[in-house]
This record gives sequence, C-alpha cells and structure tokens, in this order.
Amino acid sequence: MIKEEIIKGLKEGKIKLHEIEKYTSIEEAVELRRLFIERITGTKLKHISNYSINMEEAQKRNIENPIGTIQIPLGIAGPIKIRGEHAKGKFYIPLATSEGALVASVNRGCSAITKAGGATVRITEDKMTRAPVIRTESIQEALKVREWIQENFERLKEAAESTTRHGKLIKIDPILIVGPYLYPRFVFTTGDSMGMNMVTIATEEAMKLLTKETGAHLIALSGNACVDKKPAALNLIEGRGKSLTAEVKIPAKIVERILKTTPKAIQEVNLAKNFAGSAISGSMGFNAHYANIIGAIFLATGQDEAHITEGSLGITTAEEINGDLYFSVTLPDVPLATVGGGTRLETATECLEIMGVRGSGKVHKFAEIVAGAVLAGELSLMGALAAGHLARAHMRLGRGS
Amino acid sequence: MIKEEIIKGLKEGKIKLHEIEKYTSIEEAVELRRLFIERITGTKLKHISNYSINMEEAQKRNIENPIGTIQIPLGIAGPIKIRGEHAKGKFYIPLATSEGALVASVNRGCSAITKAGGATVRITEDKMTRAPVIRTESIQEALKVREWIQENFERLKEAAESTTRHGKLIKIDPILIVGPYLYPRFVFTTGDSMGMNMVTIATEEAMKLLTKETGAHLIALSGNACVDKKPAALNLIEGRGKSLTAEVKIPAKIVERILKTTPKAIQEVNLAKNFAGSAISGSMGFNAHYANIIGAIFLATGQDEAHITEGSLGITTAEEINGDLYFSVTLPDVPLATVGGGTRLETATECLEIMGVRGSGKVHKFAEIVAGAVLAGELSLMGALAAGHLARAHMRLGRGS
Amino acid sequence: MIKEEIIKGLKEGKIKLHEIEKYTSIEEAVELRRLFIERITGTKLKHISNYSINMEEAQKRNIENPIGTIQIPLGIAGPIKIRGEHAKGKFYIPLATSEGALVASVNRGCSAITKAGGATVRITEDKMTRAPVIRTESIQEALKVREWIQENFERLKEAAESTTRHGKLIKIDPILIVGPYLYPRFVFTTGDSMGMNMVTIATEEAMKLLTKETGAHLIALSGNACVDKKPAALNLIEGRGKSLTAEVKIPAKIVERILKTTPKAIQEVNLAKNFAGSAISGSMGFNAHYANIIGAIFLATGQDEAHITEGSLGITTAEEINGDLYFSVTLPDVPLATVGGGTRLETATECLEIMGVRGSGKVHKFAEIVAGAVLAGELSLMGALAAGHLARAHMRLGRGS
Amino acid sequence: MIKEEIIKGLKEGKIKLHEIEKYTSIEEAVELRRLFIERITGTKLKHISNYSINMEEAQKRNIENPIGTIQIPLGIAGPIKIRGEHAKGKFYIPLATSEGALVASVNRGCSAITKAGGATVRITEDKMTRAPVIRTESIQEALKVREWIQENFERLKEAAESTTRHGKLIKIDPILIVGPYLYPRFVFTTGDSMGMNMVTIATEEAMKLLTKETGAHLIALSGNACVDKKPAALNLIEGRGKSLTAEVKIPAKIVERILKTTPKAIQEVNLAKNFAGSAISGSMGFNAHYANIIGAIFLATGQDEAHITEGSLGITTAEEINGDLYFSVTLPDVPLATVGGGTRLETATECLEIMGVRGSGKVHKFAEIVAGAVLAGELSLMGALAAGHLARAHMRLGRGS
Repeated sequence: MIKEEIIKGLKEGKIKLHEIEKYTSIEEAVELRRLFIERITGTKLKHISNYSINMEEAQKRNIENPIGTIQIPLGIAGPIKIRGEHAKGKFYIPLATSEGALVASVNRGCSAITKAGGATVRITEDKMTRAPVIRTESIQEALKVREWIQENFERLKEAAESTTRHGKLIKIDPILIVGPYLYPRFVFTTGDSMGMNMVTIATEEAMKLLTKETGAHLIALSGNACVDKKPAALNLIEGRGKSLTAEVKIPAKIVERILKTTPKAIQEVNLAKNFAGSAISGSMGFNAHYANIIGAIFLATGQDEAHITEGSLGITTAEEINGDLYFSVTLPDVPLATVGGGTRLETATECLEIMGVRGSGKVHKFAEIVAGAVLAGELSLMGALAAGHLARAHMRLGRGS
Repeated sequence: MIKEEIIKGLKEGKIKLHEIEKYTSIEEAVELRRLFIERITGTKLKHISNYSINMEEAQKRNIENPIGTIQIPLGIAGPIKIRGEHAKGKFYIPLATSEGALVASVNRGCSAITKAGGATVRITEDKMTRAPVIRTESIQEALKVREWIQENFERLKEAAESTTRHGKLIKIDPILIVGPYLYPRFVFTTGDSMGMNMVTIATEEAMKLLTKETGAHLIALSGNACVDKKPAALNLIEGRGKSLTAEVKIPAKIVERILKTTPKAIQEVNLAKNFAGSAISGSMGFNAHYANIIGAIFLATGQDEAHITEGSLGITTAEEINGDLYFSVTLPDVPLATVGGGTRLETATECLEIMGVRGSGKVHKFAEIVAGAVLAGELSLMGALAAGHLARAHMRLGRGS
Repeated sequence: MIKEEIIKGLKEGKIKLHEIEKYTSIEEAVELRRLFIERITGTKLKHISNYSINMEEAQKRNIENPIGTIQIPLGIAGPIKIRGEHAKGKFYIPLATSEGALVASVNRGCSAITKAGGATVRITEDKMTRAPVIRTESIQEALKVREWIQENFERLKEAAESTTRHGKLIKIDPILIVGPYLYPRFVFTTGDSMGMNMVTIATEEAMKLLTKETGAHLIALSGNACVDKKPAALNLIEGRGKSLTAEVKIPAKIVERILKTTPKAIQEVNLAKNFAGSAISGSMGFNAHYANIIGAIFLATGQDEAHITEGSLGITTAEEINGDLYFSVTLPDVPLATVGGGTRLETATECLEIMGVRGSGKVHKFAEIVAGAVLAGELSLMGALAAGHLARAHMRLGRGS
Repeated sequence: MIKEEIIKGLKEGKIKLHEIEKYTSIEEAVELRRLFIERITGTKLKHISNYSINMEEAQKRNIENPIGTIQIPLGIAGPIKIRGEHAKGKFYIPLATSEGALVASVNRGCSAITKAGGATVRITEDKMTRAPVIRTESIQEALKVREWIQENFERLKEAAESTTRHGKLIKIDPILIVGPYLYPRFVFTTGDSMGMNMVTIATEEAMKLLTKETGAHLIALSGNACVDKKPAALNLIEGRGKSLTAEVKIPAKIVERILKTTPKAIQEVNLAKNFAGSAISGSMGFNAHYANIIGAIFLATGQDEAHITEGSLGITTAEEINGDLYFSVTLPDVPLATVGGGTRLETATECLEIMGVRGSGKVHKFAEIVAGAVLAGELSLMGALAAGHLARAHMRLGRGS
C-alpha cells in the first residue's frame, strides 16, 4: 500500500493508528503516523522526528503508536564524592530537566559535600511489591485464606519464582484485611530490574495456586496496597523499591563559604519548613524538593516517570552538632533499575554509563549515587533558603527591629 | 583557549563545568563539556549529542552545564472526544513514555469514551500557591501578624502584583499557625504559565512589605504549605494548579465490546482497589494510575516532571447506574502551562501544537484535554482489571467453586 | 404493672428495655432495668446504682435505657497560671482518669509553667462544621450547584440561622468535589455550645432550600468532610471546634530544677520523637500525648468523649533559645462547650465551676484553660523523657562510649 | 495536724495538694483536698463527693490528688447476637455516654443484627507495641544496630520478658530509619491487660541490653512509632491492640422493617460518605462514628479514654448482594483490657460482668463483643442516613425533579 493510501485510510478511520505497521516497515510506519498527525492537526513535527534511538527496539517494549521522540536537556552536576558500600569515589550526575537552576543547585550541593569529605550513603531496604485484592465469602473465610497463605508460603514462592530468573519472593507481609477483602503484599527482590512487571507476573502465578486451592476470588491483581505510583504511608513505613539514606557532616566553614549560611540557620529552616510546615499541611514529604532531583535522574536514566511520585516521599534532618552541620536525607521508596524498561533506550544507557552503572550487577551502586545526588540537591536548596533567612536576620538585628 | 587546554583545565579542576562558556561559544561549550565527561568516564555519548533543540535558548532558562539531550519515545493516543468548556471536539494525545502498553491502554480508553459520546470535563479550580514561613516572637505576635495580613490584603496584593503582568493574588488563605510559626498561603491565578516562579517572586515582594511593617521574621519563602512537589492532603483538599474532573457514561454494550467486562465488575474493582485498598494503605491516591498518564503528557509537553507527584493525587468513582457505567476521575492538583518553562522546548511546542494548545490563552483547553486523557487511561486499566476479575468469576461459577 | 411482671415481660421479650418507662416512674424504671440486667446476667450492680445525678433530666438529653452511672476518679492538678485573653490568673484543673501518674504529671507541668510566669494561650479559630454530601447528575450540574451555593449564601444563612439563636453561619468553605458528589462544609460559630446538634439542624434547614431550588439530591447530612469524630487532615488544616495554641518560655534553671533536664535535651527529644517519629509513622499527632490531657478534662467536664479523637491532633515545638526553653502546643481541633450536652450533668457542672467556666459566656475562658493544661501535660512528659535521655547521655559520656 | 491547719497550709502553699496524705488518712485527704478546692474556688462539690468506689485502691494505680469521682450515665443496649470464636450468644452492651440517642441507636442496630442471625466477629491481630527512638553516630552505625537487633532477638526477648509474666515479645518489626534515628517497634502479646505499662517496662529492659552492647544512645523510650494515643497510618496498616472485623448479612426485609431503608441506599451512602468523603478530607476514619461506640464502651469498662483516638480508625463496607445487605466494620487498632488499669474500678468491673468478661482469660471474648457493638452502632447510623436519603429520593421522583 502506498503512503497516501494509508494516510487516507487513517483519516477515514479504516486503518487504526496501531495498524500501520501491517502495511509498511516499522521505520516508515513511524513516519507515516507522524505525517498523518501533522496533516490532521496542521502541524510540523520537525524536532519530534529528529531522533537517533532504535525505534524498532523501542516499539517492542517501550512505546506504541510512536511518532518520534521528545528531547529534554541534559545537564551534568558533580563530581560528588560518595562513600557507599557499592559506590565509592567521585561521580558525575546526569540530570534531564527543563527547570532552570536545578542542575546548578545540585552542583553546588555536590561541591559542598565533596569538600566536606563526601556523602555517606546506604541502602536500608531493597524490594518490589505487588498486592492483589481477594474477595472471600466472609471474614472467617478471609482468615482461613490468610492462614493458608502463611502456611503455604513455600509453595507460593515456588509458583511465583517459576516465572522469573531474577525475582525472589521474600515474604508476603502485611496481609491486610478490610471486611471480606484480603490484600496480601507480595514482597520480592528483583535484581537489577525495577521489577514491577516481573513481580506482577510472578504474583499472578502464585495467585493461580491460591485461588485454585482456597476458592477465594481474585478481584484484581493490584489492590492498591502495593502501592504503585501513588503516595502512600504504607510505602513510607515499609519501604518500596530501594530505601535510601544519605548523610554528611559539613564543617561550619564550608557551610559558610559555599552555602553562605550557618548550620544553625539550616537547622531552623528545616524545623520550620520540612517538619512543622509539612506536618500542618498533612504532607508525606518532609523534605524540600526530593522530587526535583529524583525526577531529573529518573528521566536521564530511563526510569519510570510515574515513580517520581514515590521518590518524593521522605524526611530530611538538619542539626547543628558541635558547631558543624549534620544533614541527612531518607527516601524509603525509590524504584530503580539498571536493566530493562526505559534503561535500554540509547540516551538512558549513555547516562547510566556516565555513572558506571549500566547493566547487571549495578543497581545498588546506582541507588547509592541517587541518594548522594538527592542529598546534594536538598542541601543546596535548604542552604539557599537559610542564606536568605540569615541575611534577613542580620538586617533585622542591624536595624534593631 | 583551545579545546584540549580547556579539557585539561577541567580535569585539573582549574576550570569548573559551568565556566567553559567563558572561553568558547555556547555550542562548543556543550560539546567540550560532553567530551570531557566522555573522557573522564570512558564513555561515548553519541545519542545524547544528537539533538535539534536550540541549546542556547535552553541554557537561558532550562538547563545548566548541558551536554546534550535525552530522547524519550513519543506515542500517540486518540482521538478522544472531549466535551469541555474550552476543549470541544476530538483530540490526539501525545504521550512520552518508556512504559510499554501505556499508550495502547490510553488509546483503548479514548476509543471507549469517544464511542460513548465523549468525556465531559471541567476545571473546578485554577490557582498557584506559595506559602512562606514566618517566625514571630510569640503567639500573640503571630495573631497580630495574621490580623495584619487580613487587614492589608489590598496592599499585599498590590506589592505582589507589581512584579508580574499575569499573576493575580486572589486570596491569602489558609494562614496556618504552629506555635510561633505562621504559614500564609498566597493563592494566585497565573494565566497560561504554571506560575511557580511568578508566584515566588510576587510573594517575596509581598513579604518585604509584611516584614517591614510587622517586624515579623521570614524564615523561608517556602514553608512547605504551598505544597510544591510533595504529596499533601492540603493540596487534595484545597486544590493546586488546575483542579480537574472528568466523567463519562458508557452504555453497557460498549463496556462489554471494548473493555470486555461489565459496569458492575468495574464498580466492584473500584470499590475493592481504589477505595478500600487505598484507605487501608494510608494512600492519598484513590485511583489506579493517574501518575502514568499525567507523567506521559507532562514529559511530552514540557511540564515540570516533579509535579507528577501532585498529579498522582485524586479519586476515581465507578458506578453501575441503570445497567450502564458512570465513571469519573477527580484530580485536584495538576500544575500546568502552555507558556514558559519547559513548554518552550521545541519538541514540547510541537506536542502542544498537536492538541492545538500552544501559547497564550490555551491553558484551560489543555487542562481539559489532560483530564480527558486521564479519564481514558484510568478507564482502560480499570476495565482490564475488571475483565480479568469477570473472567475469573465466570470460571468460578462454571466450575462451581 | 408490678415489678416482677415487668421483669417477666422483659425476659420474654414482650417488653423492650426502653418501654419500662411506660409502666412506671422514671426512677423505678432505672431500677427495674438494672434489676433485669442483674438477673439475666447474674451480676450485682451495686456501684452502678450509687449515683446522685438527676436521671430524669439525663434521660431527656443524655442517655437512653439508663441503669445508673459509672464513676471515674477525679483528681486535681494545679494551680497553673494562664495568661489568655479570657482566662487570666491561676486555675486548678479537674482531671477524670484511671491512668495512674497522669494527674501528677500534669501537676508537675503546671508547677514549672507557673514558676516560669505562666502559659500564654490564644484561641486562633472558633467554629463548628457540618458537611453534607450531595449527588448531582453530572459535573456540570455539580458546578452549577456550587455556584448556586456561593451566590445564595445569604439565603442559606438565613435558612440555617432560622433554627437557632446562637448559631451563626460564617462561611460555606471549602466546597469539595469528587466526581458527581459535592461536599459543602457549613462553618458556624456556636456560642458556648459544642454545637454539633445545632449545626446539624441548621444545615438541614439550609439543605432544604438548596435541594428545593437546585434539584440536587442530598445523599446524607454528613458526608464525612465535617469531619466529626474521625482524625482528618482537613481538620488539622482548617481547624474545628476551638483551635488553640499555648506557649511558655522556661528559664534553664527551672527546667533543670523541676523537670530534671535541659532545654537542649527537650529540643532533641521533640525532634526525634514528635517530628521525625511521627513523620515516619504516617501520624497526624505530632505530639507526645495530647489525648491524655484532653481526655481527662473532657470526661471531667461532660464533653463528648468521642471528640477526644479530634483533640489528639496537633503539633508540639520545643526549642532552646538563648539557653532557655521555648515550648508550644498547637491543637487545631478541640470541640468544647460550657453549656448543653454532658456539661449539664451534675459532676460536670461542678468541674466547670472549679475553673469558673460554668454556663454562658465562658467557653473561651474554658478553651484557654484547656490549652494551658495540655501545655502542662505535654511539657511534663517531654521533660520526663528528656530527663531519661539526659541521664543516659551523661552515663555514656562517663563511660566513654 | 487538724483540718483547718492543713487547709491553711494548702492556701499558703506550704503544703502541696499531693502531700495531704502525709498528715491524714487517705479518706480524709480526699475530703480535705476537695474542701480546699471548694473554698479556694467558691464552689460546692456535692456530687463529686458522692462516690462508692474504694479510693484508697484507686489512688494506688489510677489517680493522684483525688477529690472524688465524676458520674457518667450508663445505658444498656442489646441484646445482640454475636457469633465469634470466643463470644457466642446474646449480650447486653453497657454504654457510658452523655450523647443523647447513642444508646438508642446502638440498640436498634443490635436488634437488626440479632434478627438477621447475628454478627460474625473475628480478632484478626492481637498485640501491644512500644517503639523507642535511638540515636546513632551515623547511618552505618544505625544499620549495625538494626542488624544487632535482628541477630539478638532471642536475647532481647529474654530481657524484655524477664520483667513480666504475661507479656511475650513476638517480633521487633518494623525497624524504621530516619537518618541517624532508629525506631524499633517492639511487638508483644499482653494477655488480658491492655499492656502499655507492661510493654514499656519490658522494652526498657531490652533497651538496657541493646544500649550496653551496641553503644547506641536511647533518646526516648517512646519515639512515636508505637503509635500510642495518636491517629497514625502505621497503626491502621500494622494494627495495634486488638484488630477487629465484624460482619453481618441482613435480608432486605429486615433492612426495610427495622432500618426503614434499602440495602442499595445504604451502599450509596457508604460510598459517598465513608469512602469518597473521607478520601477527599484526608481522613483515616473511613467510617461514620466508630469513636462514639468505642468511647461509650471504653468509659463503661474502664479502658483508657485516650485510646478512643485509636479506636476511631477503620473502614466500613456496605454492599447490596443479591438484594440483601452485606455490611462490615474493620477496626485495626483497639487497645483493650479485662484486667488492670481502670478495669479494676468498681463500676467498670460491674460493666465487664454484665458481658461476662471480667478478669483473666476474657479479653478476646470482650474484644469480639466490642466489634459486634461497633457493627450495631455503625449500621444503625448508616441506616438512618440512608433512610433520609431514600425518603428524599422518593420525594424527588414523586415531584419529577
């Protein structure tokens, strides 16, 4: 079929957007689809067509109905010295964002941290979860099913793991109950993959065994106690993805020279803003802007953008100790991957390579670098807010108000 | 200075990453910076260098230390028929994502909605907020400052609006109190900009007046009651950005033909998952996956990726009414722009053009299309979960368990 | 009918528990009901029968099917010096509780506060709320109804206030939207009554007008956005009942002498426990034990015990400032009354009299005393925790660990 | 010392309120303290003095500075048929309250449930918790301490259990981390006691071992991750005290006859109010009024009134199934006791006896009755709301609006 016929078919609704590939090569299909959109919307999609990634590969696992790619500017921050268990040394951080000043801010934080001897980072938990919702006939039935799950953990594990090489079912906990509904939270380790697909498939297999043997009815493979891509106290408490903590002790002199403020001022801003302000707002983010740094790294490295939601959760502490600044970030819920999903996209691969974390066996190193970057970005913004605070406090004292 | 000298300077730390532009053109600086990163990390950043956007422009407002761009696949869903106040007619939705099946799923939802006559969408609130934190000497003082704010609203408004052509201060409410801390939430309309920068500058100006006249001390321009880029009940309740609701009534036959399930089954899944499952998990997202659709549109159109966090909040309802399906989504917190920030990036501009919402006077139309797209994506996933549920229910009945 | 016949009738189910009064005096009915319960359950309800309150009066508004009263020990704490707008001077606090050490703890706090010159207390908001849920045909309809509410506020106010002498409708805000559902929050002042009944009746009257004129359907007079007797961020943010703040500055010497600790130690415990600990637990109570003090005063003075839930919300701050302790409590949600409901019960009346807050025109004074008492109780427990912390810190330093 | 001298001493501040017992018998001390309060506040505390409980015993564990007792009316609801594992048969429920209509409402619910064959109730979890907060030198140190806890569970268990006959340490989980702070949640079973004191003492003993061996510093024995007497998602998710679920299936005819409404109407009210209304309000109480019933039973039976806060959490479901009503309540967080604390007070003992749950070995039976009572109270209020809804719906249809 020739080009114009296909476009005519699209216009008349005889061919659907996803059917073009039936008549042409994938490469041409992308072009035709874009051409059709250009015509029907009266636009010129010049930049969208300027891509270098292998769209045929992308179409297998990342996208349907492709018409090209978008471009997002990529900046570099660093180096930041990281003292992790897996990441040791200095790293440059690729950040994809359109928010002016973000890269500069992270960069400044990297500088302060590195001068102070580096960020200590640790992964405190590592898991991916899926929690189906089951309906039982009654609460007695619900309790029997719960007991069955507890007693048959090994069988469920075997079923689940039969579907995956890398996923390991480590526990089914908690098993939440709401009247006749049961929400068993399947908790896996997933190697270097983010693992949502892996654990969904594995959980489905386990559920086949469960429903067959107990007669319980599976309402939905996800019962929202996973909790995937929604902010939830459950994830804050139990963790999901990588749970990360990073800390740094910064001598007062470095705080003053690089951040233009004092440890005491940062402590005050943290109390008033990240603790009291978040508390009175009913917030789950006791931090200044984790989402900014998480977001920019996620886009750069091909993570799932919807998971930025989960990465926004967490708590910052700032304390003046013996005149110096102790500063920490805690992120209980950061889904991450170095293989699979969007990480295979060419620009993502290159960004992972910049940090030396491309491919298998690298996700823990990557997670530690992410934690360090968040520490840098958070420190820098808190420092900037505190610098204004300090400046104003000085003025006030100066004019005696 | 020649290329190698600059790279040597970078390696030795004598030149900083952001100083390259001092010695060369911006274009060369991007290349040199990338070259330096390639050398120091032993990588080849071929795809990152393949960009067509105007980096000189980007560097003015979107990025620092650029080394190129990332590429994210862009797919098309639709058309979806929208019946809004501003968006009327059929629209194609550009979605940038690396999550396989997402575009296809939204597409299916668009199809069901369009066949059912279209999505009714409304903007229920429109505002952008900034809430500084002030420290007073005592709670009497705090109350005096609060009273001053209430009595001097017009002066504060004048001060705030002196900094912006488009921003209008519409109220300062609530004014939260925690001991000696005060958090006045400045609420603006911001035209077609997302408006965070605009309201920050405007609020700063108003705060100058306030602190000068009351002697109160401004701790930080953001006191986390804004609430920017963190999930918070305050935003769920009061709204932020565009507050959106979309609904559709789908005849049972269309539910069966396109979604392969029944209104009743979708209602059941919604109750068990989006309501009971989210409730028992301490979640603020009483929905299946708003973040997915919000995320993909945000990236396509140059919105701030960190705001995906806010867009993940909201509530889905699903009811069988007289045999048909009534389905709605409510998103109280979706910051959006059609001008400024990342929307000026070339691919973003093209994506906005696809929907006919580029530039001034278009943000409400854009918001309504976003709401329709979320409705489509949510409906499709809920339908898929319900179809599995239904299939299993049939099997169960079939085998008498 | 004679006694034994009635009891026989009760046993056989021919007479219901609430029907005894048909056949006898109220006094006898209480006795007969108790006698019946004694017989059927094989118990001897000696102490329950030992009451002095006027049960006939109680039965009109406080209780059905009475069999007597319970007794709860009443202790006295204080005096505490209060520096409010309404409460000025020293007060003794009646506390009804069975939790050993609570009265002693509050007493100690009173002592520290009084020695430091007294607690400064303020009422920051005063209101009672009721939020019905309305169902509309569509979101367009929902928006029209919202607009109607906003435009007809004066008429709704007139309707609402026609039912009450003391209740004043001050605003209807927020008006929450979830798909086709609308939750207008009616906000009243209620004088010296707690006001739930008053505002329910007034809201019902307003809703009659609304439903008649708009055709909207009232699903329920309470749509859970009131939010009555459930912990909710909405109340934390917007306030409900009396919103209270109390503060005290305590010289280091008094902290050391009475609380056996230091301002710094209390600051540290507050940060680690009330802020970070509550944050990571998904809690709405950023305090140590408001519910204890609120609970004991509520029982003593005849407040509604279910409102203890709301009184448990709030935020404690503790800061070392220039070597001394600044300590504050903020309770946004404390429903209170000095007239009506349980306050008319004889022991409640006596307890209100102890504080000089019985009857009309006294509720603000009462509220300020409550805030002072909570400050005392919170300070004392935080001091005790910090004293242990301090002691252990000394030991640790002593042994060089 | 004679009476007037003591009162003089109290007035002059030479004798403190809690020192009277040094000079007189306990009985006289109560009288003198009351007399003093009467004189200094100009009141007559006639009813407070009318008590029959043994104040000498109360003073040992329930109260300090007693001046008498308060009286709260006690009503009886029931019988309600309970089908639990421990409670089987019909029970009368003692309710202490001053909120008119509450007893009548619970009573009506009992009637509907009993006629429908009774409430099925189950205890889904049973535990009491205490979570200290530990400060470590760094996050590496925090992880080492966490590991130490996990590896030395048996030793910690031995230490903890050395302090108690009834308490058993069943797990230490979760162990939350916020920067350098660690919050190990010690989870115990506590037999028939509510157990807060028991687990506090036991946890303290375990912490002595921990701090001695690890060098970690105990900041406070409670770090607010317990979570005691504050509403918290952690408790909603993990449970605390008794976690309870109760359900009933009520034929349509009984719903109509006793509750004057239909299963469908109750389902609608539950969706609009308990789910959507609570969701949009940022509430943790997805129910109508658990706190009312929990409160009235807690007071009657000597439970800790501050725990009403925790009992207010939970989720109600209501579904029309095959024309009948399926109705359930889930309360994850109900601390309860049949021995110790306030349960020893004479009127509490009598109330426990009414239900046949006084003393050892009875707490599970008691918990099941509590769950049944909450089911009854919730059903009755939801029925009443739905009856109004239904009536209005009929009217609307009648007049064609």
